[in-house]
Amino acid sequence: MKYIESKKNDEIKQLKKLSATKNIRKTGTYLIEGFHLVREADQYDQKFEKLFVTENYSDDRLVKKYYDIATTISEDVSEEISETKSPQGIFAVIKVQDVPDMPTLDGKWVILDDVQDPGNVGTIVRTADAAGYNGVITSLNSADTYQPKVQRSMQGSQFHLPIYRMDIQKALKLAKDSSLEIYGSEVNKSAKPYNELPKTENFALIMGNEAHGVSKDVLVNCDENIYIPILGKAESLNVAVAAGVLMYGLQSL
Amino acid sequence: MKYIESKKNDEIKQLKKLSATKNIRKTGTYLIEGFHLVREADQYDQKFEKLFVTENYSDDRLVKKYYDIATTISEDVSEEISETKSPQGIFAVIKVQDVPDMPTLDGKWVILDDVQDPGNVGTIVRTADAAGYNGVITSLNSADTYQPKVQRSMQGSQFHLPIYRMDIQKALKLAKDSSLEIYGSEVNKSAKPYNELPKTENFALIMGNEAHGVSKDVLVNCDENIYIPILGKAESLNVAVAAGVLMYGLQSL
Repeated sequence: MKYIESKKNDEIKQLKKLSATKNIRKTGTYLIEGFHLVREADQYDQKFEKLFVTENYSDDRLVKKYYDIATTISEDVSEEISETKSPQGIFAVIKVQDVPDMPTLDGKWVILDDVQDPGNVGTIVRTADAAGYNGVITSLNSADTYQPKVQRSMQGSQFHLPIYRMDIQKALKLAKDSSLEIYGSEVNKSAKPYNELPKTENFALIMGNEAHGVSKDVLVNCDENIYIPILGKAESLNVAVAAGVLMYGLQSL
Repeated sequence: MKYIESKKNDEIKQLKKLSATKNIRKTGTYLIEGFHLVREADQYDQKFEKLFVTENYSDDRLVKKYYDIATTISEDVSEEISETKSPQGIFAVIKVQDVPDMPTLDGKWVILDDVQDPGNVGTIVRTADAAGYNGVITSLNSADTYQPKVQRSMQGSQFHLPIYRMDIQKALKLAKDSSLEIYGSEVNKSAKPYNELPKTENFALIMGNEAHGVSKDVLVNCDENIYIPILGKAESLNVAVAAGVLMYGLQSL
């Protein structure tokens, strides 16, 4: 098995470039790290292009399975690639999934209108998975879900439910054409409190940008604009928390 | 007004040390940054020890009010002090509030059992404020709420509701002595789904450590252990999201 000791190695330099969206698009591959995530990618049949591990993984089942594309790396290299303080020493380069022709949407969806913080986007996908939603659509200006930080905070949910990326108006049209009820979320007391909505099995919940919320030209196209009552003196909620409250609040438990 | 140009200035070096808990305890002061937070601290009558601003704030009302303890700083110094990428150029050193003799608890409380990520702790306090909870108690091993990162993510809620810090068993005893129902949260299907709890006006909700959850010697002392149903394939929720789902789910909206 190949061994890379120096963090100045060309292949390692290329790998680090996979934190940028343009390089993810160019190569059609993205980077994940950590044992849990790499194991989930394998379990959910993602296409592995490369596997990098420190020596303590040499007897691992995954290393045996991907032996032909595996490389051993030094701790030094592991720290260089990793975005965490205590890297687990296991990384994989995965092929970006082909986006199938867009289906008709069914069930419960979350649409992100320019949610820009990677942690927020990742956490919302993870929550959508937990809350039993059917999928997530991100607008073109939302944080790219193939970025390492988003990948890490999705904690495997990226392999459990479909995530599409498209122009926000196209996403709205798709939801409308699929006969979903469309709920825009607002920090606005003239919108409808989420807990007063009738239970619905087919809807799209739209969450907005951290600073500006859901954009006006999206809100006008929603069937209902909803809000979470603020009962104390806070001005708003973190968008990932708000998404969680709404996703579970609108779920028929 | 005093002017500091160099980031090597001794006072600036001292200021930077206020990111560490031990120095916050030693000096009895902590550091906040950003216009919104500094304004909220003033509005809620916190005791200002120092104010640092870049030149563009020289006509600001706050600078006039705190003129005797204000210092103008260069952009260079502002970047040195700040923990953000785009500092707003306004910082205050605030006196740590004296903890009053512990009252009897009343209403809805959140207790954090070793929640360690500063962003999670801050976001939970912000959500507790939004959801109309009466206060938050953090265990001794939770992230210190006077840390700059926690301060930033609380977004002013630290001035809206009381935050106590104490040994977790002491917190439990206080909640019991106050006749609050005590709910421990678990990722465990044998616990009770949160939406099946009877509505209660007086309770304490306990949220646990990111990796280990609420500790066993706390769970055994709870009146009821509750969980959020996981309907998809995710293993768990982010603790700040889970806290939001539970806080709103248990609130009588």
